[in-house]
Amino acid sequence: MPNTHGGAEKGPESSKDRHRLILETAARLICEKGYDGASIQDIADACGLTKAGLYHHIRSKEHLLLEIQNYGMDVFEEQVLSQVIAIADPIERLKTCMHRNVMLVTKGWSKEVTIILHEHATLTGEARSQINARKKRYVRFLESSFAEAIRSGRMREVNPTVAAFSFLGMVLWIYKWFRDGGKISAEQLADEMKKVLFGGLEIAPAKAPAAPTVRRKR
Amino acid sequence: MPNTHGGAEKGPESSKDRHRLILETAARLICEKGYDGASIQDIADACGLTKAGLYHHIRSKEHLLLEIQNYGMDVFEEQVLSQVIAIADPIERLKTCMHRNVMLVTKGWSKEVTIILHEHATLTGEARSQINARKKRYVRFLESSFAEAIRSGRMREVNPTVAAFSFLGMVLWIYKWFRDGGKISAEQLADEMKKVLFGGLEIAPAKAPAAPTVRRKR
Repeated sequence: MPNTHGGAEKGPESSKDRHRLILETAARLICEKGYDGASIQDIADACGLTKAGLYHHIRSKEHLLLEIQNYGMDVFEEQVLSQVIAIADPIERLKTCMHRNVMLVTKGWSKEVTIILHEHATLTGEARSQINARKKRYVRFLESSFAEAIRSGRMREVNPTVAAFSFLGMVLWIYKWFRDGGKISAEQLADEMKKVLFGGLEIAPAKAPAAPTVRRKR
Repeated sequence: MPNTHGGAEKGPESSKDRHRLILETAARLICEKGYDGASIQDIADACGLTKAGLYHHIRSKEHLLLEIQNYGMDVFEEQVLSQVIAIADPIERLKTCMHRNVMLVTKGWSKEVTIILHEHATLTGEARSQINARKKRYVRFLESSFAEAIRSGRMREVNPTVAAFSFLGMVLWIYKWFRDGGKISAEQLADEMKKVLFGGLEIAPAKAPAAPTVRRKR
């Protein structure tokens, strides 16, 4: 699990946990001070390591930024994409995907990882293409799932690209406003978002003509 | 109109246009080089002004950042909020609002203004509170419009806060992926987004039982 801060000195998980802790800590510092403002010394201090100790774990500051982004995409693929890709029904696949993505964004990793994944354009060249390709894979997955659902006749005919980016915008905007422990729980958020997005997309099964609209008292 | 680059030497509009051009240019430089990286000299050069000439228009670099954000909110309120706030029907109000907000994000101002409004946390104290209050006003407007539509019985019962931030996420994520002149036009994007969001939210008028689902040939 991502947010495993501390207690990383035992068992075979410890080195992986330590590495994750470094990446999460570096992400936090880069968000606070900016990429240029956060020095390797700052990051080492925040991790409770010497500079030499930190270099045991990382190659360079630029490579660290790539590693944070790859770490973000790894956790995303492990907890979201790979868990839903085999679901045969496209609407069920998309709903489960939204649920898992909302849970990841609200609980799975730190807000700073999201910020570095989606706001930081500091990567260049090969590193940048690598991350963009991983992001694009998710967009294509969503687009083709929406297209499949539309072809099946159970989803309204909308542009699958607009549907895919609407899905992404809803889910990825969450870190801007949502606070865990606030009025709305993460589970409730996931359920409500599915209602908002799919309530309209999914064609309701034919129903008996309704009685003249019943209005609730208020 | 915001993107009025150049030709600002005639008529009563010229000083306002010149000011807008400075703000848009500064926004672009701050996005390229970061707030710390973009010097007042860089901004003056890009505007074709001397440093003294630039200081004729701006108070300080920090104040410039506030001005860019206030400019973004001014244009937003002028072209979106004030144009829809008086629409009596809440669903019509929200749809028109989405349409206008999509057009603003795709055509009305530069991508850099959006980035500075939504990604830059460099403002502090009073300036920050001022911008946050303006943003919050929009969130409250959306929430209360969704709540009103739900009370009227014509919108599914969803959490109005989640609906408001879903709306915002869809619309504000656009600058991350949309390119004017690409496969999807701005108008088409606005129409499709309304279909995606409201198709589900709006309770369809009672219809005659449909014939067994007609599937399109493909």
